[in-house]
Amino acid sequence: MCSIINKARPVHRALALTLRLRTNTEGSSYAAADRGHFSPCGGADVDPLRAASRRYCSRMALSQGLLFRQLFEPESSTYTYLLADTSTKEAVLIDPVLEPLDRALTLLHELGFNLKVAVNTHCHADHITSTGLMKKRLAGLKSAISKFSGASADIHLSEGDKITFGKQYLTVVETPGHTDGCVTLVTGDRSMAFTGDALLIRGCGRTDFQQGSAKKLYQSIHQKIFTLPDHCLIYPGHDYKGQTASTVAEERKFNPRLTKSLEEFVDIMNNLNLPKPKKIDVSVPANLVCGVTKSECPEKGRILIQSTTS
Amino acid sequence: MCSIINKARPVHRALALTLRLRTNTEGSSYAAADRGHFSPCGGADVDPLRAASRRYCSRMALSQGLLFRQLFEPESSTYTYLLADTSTKEAVLIDPVLEPLDRALTLLHELGFNLKVAVNTHCHADHITSTGLMKKRLAGLKSAISKFSGASADIHLSEGDKITFGKQYLTVVETPGHTDGCVTLVTGDRSMAFTGDALLIRGCGRTDFQQGSAKKLYQSIHQKIFTLPDHCLIYPGHDYKGQTASTVAEERKFNPRLTKSLEEFVDIMNNLNLPKPKKIDVSVPANLVCGVTKSECPEKGRILIQSTTS
Repeated sequence: MCSIINKARPVHRALALTLRLRTNTEGSSYAAADRGHFSPCGGADVDPLRAASRRYCSRMALSQGLLFRQLFEPESSTYTYLLADTSTKEAVLIDPVLEPLDRALTLLHELGFNLKVAVNTHCHADHITSTGLMKKRLAGLKSAISKFSGASADIHLSEGDKITFGKQYLTVVETPGHTDGCVTLVTGDRSMAFTGDALLIRGCGRTDFQQGSAKKLYQSIHQKIFTLPDHCLIYPGHDYKGQTASTVAEERKFNPRLTKSLEEFVDIMNNLNLPKPKKIDVSVPANLVCGVTKSECPEKGRILIQSTTS
Repeated sequence: MCSIINKARPVHRALALTLRLRTNTEGSSYAAADRGHFSPCGGADVDPLRAASRRYCSRMALSQGLLFRQLFEPESSTYTYLLADTSTKEAVLIDPVLEPLDRALTLLHELGFNLKVAVNTHCHADHITSTGLMKKRLAGLKSAISKFSGASADIHLSEGDKITFGKQYLTVVETPGHTDGCVTLVTGDRSMAFTGDALLIRGCGRTDFQQGSAKKLYQSIHQKIFTLPDHCLIYPGHDYKGQTASTVAEERKFNPRLTKSLEEFVDIMNNLNLPKPKKIDVSVPANLVCGVTKSECPEKGRILIQSTTS
């Protein structure tokens, strides 16, 4: 087991979570969210503005020493996220994309970061991860993905795992539905959630391939994401309209699909009739092996760059 | 004089600034920045990481009640910024673009914001502002731009003016060089600077048209932007590489043009040999009159949408 990932038994984890939350928060907003109850329309009457600002100071105080950057890859409209502990300079990349690899490496180099983990929120169908190539360029880097993804990686993630970098950490929250192996990554202070293709801004991931299940996705979002604090910022895996962030309260109130009932949601998702993703036939096989060919993964991979430019 | 803009005589303004800074800060970082001295390479030895996080808590505490959103328009790679006071719901838009007007209006409507001011950091050459059209759709909205821009607007901005929205405000900092009428807008706590086309991430605006002056731009950036606090986040008017933000310390250390001497910088800028912006012939005339034809500006304008889609 990689030391970067902290695993705990459920009982211990619940106790640790409780203790951590008592230390980190001072009010009811977190406590309510911690109940984790299923509330399809719960909180729809919360004012998203007040939710967004209510605990701004305390939230950001907890984030002291956290550097955060959002990067965009226009061809697949994918967001990559860099988070780092500015004291120890340990860093994590979420959903790195193959093509702009050098941009990410340059930024890491300039800021003097030591990239500990490159984590994919799921096995992507629309772009090829740069995890495998990064591992060839950065000594000690570990790849991570859900144990339910079916993909090769150094670390297979499960519910409640913590990806630590310096004094910071991300908690793994399983949010299947777009694929079986989708996870949402939540910062230690629960001020930011990286939702991958589960929850998008005013949208959500499709559910018509790769073990997709509209019912599972609806339950994942309502039970695991909408129960995060109202002010928690949503950073999605993609955006196609130039939007960069939202909040739990906003999506709970304004997401045109997720404000529907489960039955209506399933009906919507089953009738989207979307074309197959352009790169699914090369992306999924490549991403199952860190973006490199299986025979050589992960250290000696022939990178499938040719697949991404055809 | 529009009541949104607070003007003060230089002496009074300096005193107010001093008092405000004494109240708002607790250390030397702000004080050093306030000296405002010209230091072409000053601070290059500052660790951008520590600068970014050093005063994270105090900065964010000052931002309590501020909602911030970054929006992107892909055709011209333009960023629009929404800032709002979450208590009073008064809002400001920086550099709104014509084409995604409905996206901005929908977001304002959902969040219940009252847009007070739509401000352009300068008279753009690469896209048409939506200020004029917004004024037709939103009662009470004021347009604002530098008094040196030569453009029509309800409010003409000068150095030190404050654009207030609820308890929040933006301070106007004149940063000519890309054009004569370029301004940088700085949040009240000096944690964010919206630099328009003066300073970009690892780049800067061109200086070969619209009164452009490489020498002026260099001095503006070094004297007015690089003297902001190290941790101050840089939000540019454009980015062409999927980057969303930087910091003063980072740009001071890593910007490939601005780390050069004045002479080297002028030489670089005078030899870029860039093609003329595709839309300059329609954008500049349109933006001089809020994006609508002059005869009908600002209330009855025929919107130049046809110009943007040709």
